[in-house]
Amino acid sequence: MLDRIGTKWTSMVVKVLAEEAPGELRFADLRRRVPGISQKMLSVTLRSLVRDGLVARRVEPTVPPAVHYRLTELGLSLEGPLSALRVWAETHMPEIDRSNRLADEAPSSPT
Amino acid sequence: MLDRIGTKWTSMVVKVLAEEAPGELRFADLRRRVPGISQKMLSVTLRSLVRDGLVARRVEPTVPPAVHYRLTELGLSLEGPLSALRVWAETHMPEIDRSNRLADEAPSSPT
Repeated sequence: MLDRIGTKWTSMVVKVLAEEAPGELRFADLRRRVPGISQKMLSVTLRSLVRDGLVARRVEPTVPPAVHYRLTELGLSLEGPLSALRVWAETHMPEIDRSNRLADEAPSSPT
Repeated sequence: MLDRIGTKWTSMVVKVLAEEAPGELRFADLRRRVPGISQKMLSVTLRSLVRDGLVARRVEPTVPPAVHYRLTELGLSLEGPLSALRVWAETHMPEIDRSNRLADEAPSSPT
């Protein structure tokens, strides 16, 4: 479970949908607002979020059909803890990068 | 980054080390306290945490050498946001499971 909700793409999609809540976003809008995500990865991420009940999907029967996504109440309740983790990661990224650079320079040692 | 710290095993290892902080744990103790983790997966998880500067590794030069792990200050600062996410996941697991069961029963639809 944590392996699904704790990923970068899930976190970013939930963030963008939370900004819009209780409104909806269409697939193309979401893709525009999650920089770097591929069509395939956005599709996989949304499918997983819908399955878990975090995102609701609404098909508007136009030609071609328009598909709208919004956070459910459950999805909205995730945004709090997830954003705390996001803020932590952004705050400490320089420190973590520095640690990784030092590890690359040091001789490797077994665990 | 989020893809590393948001995983189940990272979360569980940080939790167990946080319970012990500022004390240390040996590899075998950690393995005992993270149920279901394989030796290989614990090794990979610890290596990644050490690289990121979240865990400190101390080798005691005995025969055989004893290896001790503890959370760094950075690692300790992660436990707050990570535990909030853990609590969210535990609280909402039944709801998420129910949603997944419903999805299995329903006819599939394209994203």
